[in-house]
Amino acid sequence: MSYDDTNIFAKILRGEIPSQRVYEDDDVIAFMDVMPQAEGHVLVVPRTPSRNILDASPAVLAKTIAVVQKLAVATKKAFAADGVTIMQFNEAPAGQSVFHLHFHVIPRRAGVLLKPHTGAMEKPEVLAANAEKIRAALA
Amino acid sequence: MSYDDTNIFAKILRGEIPSQRVYEDDDVIAFMDVMPQAEGHVLVVPRTPSRNILDASPAVLAKTIAVVQKLAVATKKAFAADGVTIMQFNEAPAGQSVFHLHFHVIPRRAGVLLKPHTGAMEKPEVLAANAEKIRAALA
Repeated sequence: MSYDDTNIFAKILRGEIPSQRVYEDDDVIAFMDVMPQAEGHVLVVPRTPSRNILDASPAVLAKTIAVVQKLAVATKKAFAADGVTIMQFNEAPAGQSVFHLHFHVIPRRAGVLLKPHTGAMEKPEVLAANAEKIRAALA
Repeated sequence: MSYDDTNIFAKILRGEIPSQRVYEDDDVIAFMDVMPQAEGHVLVVPRTPSRNILDASPAVLAKTIAVVQKLAVATKKAFAADGVTIMQFNEAPAGQSVFHLHFHVIPRRAGVLLKPHTGAMEKPEVLAANAEKIRAALA
């Protein structure tokens, strides 16, 4: 299947809808997941369009995983977490719901299960406060 | 925490214990997970030691994600799968059980949930047959 530039991450990349960005460079951005599965859940998204890892360019993927690493370290620090779970889904049967390549970076605490993707939106002020903690950890 | 070279993937890399390898190059190997969460579940592992993504070198990570992509494409093809789930765990509270950096690449079918990590080993002949399908898809 081909890339459809009306997906929500394409709109975020174009600035058509808001996001709580925590990182950006020429190739990759990272912003808060609005339906976090744990406190500090961020998404790392390359600017170059691809549907997922199956059609991404290896060069884009290399730049993206470097930012995934930065955010793994920063979110662990920002939330004094015990670990970090990284997930990346390709096509709907694998868990993908937005069809622009993205990595989930989720700081984890011992004994705390991931929340399901219920569709419940986190409060904007909570996302803003968590984004600020991550920006501080990256600085 | 520091890297401990007695972990099972270090032993597999040194050839001290067997694995069903489906891919290897100078930097990265891929082999069948012996407790697959779905048919065709493979692990992609850099040869250079690091505990997980938190202490990996960015250069190693770039080489590793390139192989993750190859295996995502190949396992989808080999099993005529509907999608591919990629997971990478950092520290035990995040799901890590072997402390050498690795990525899970899991082909997915519509309507089929991932099996839990029960500790049940797949039959060696099943792993061997699935490995052969993946090698053929990579060729």
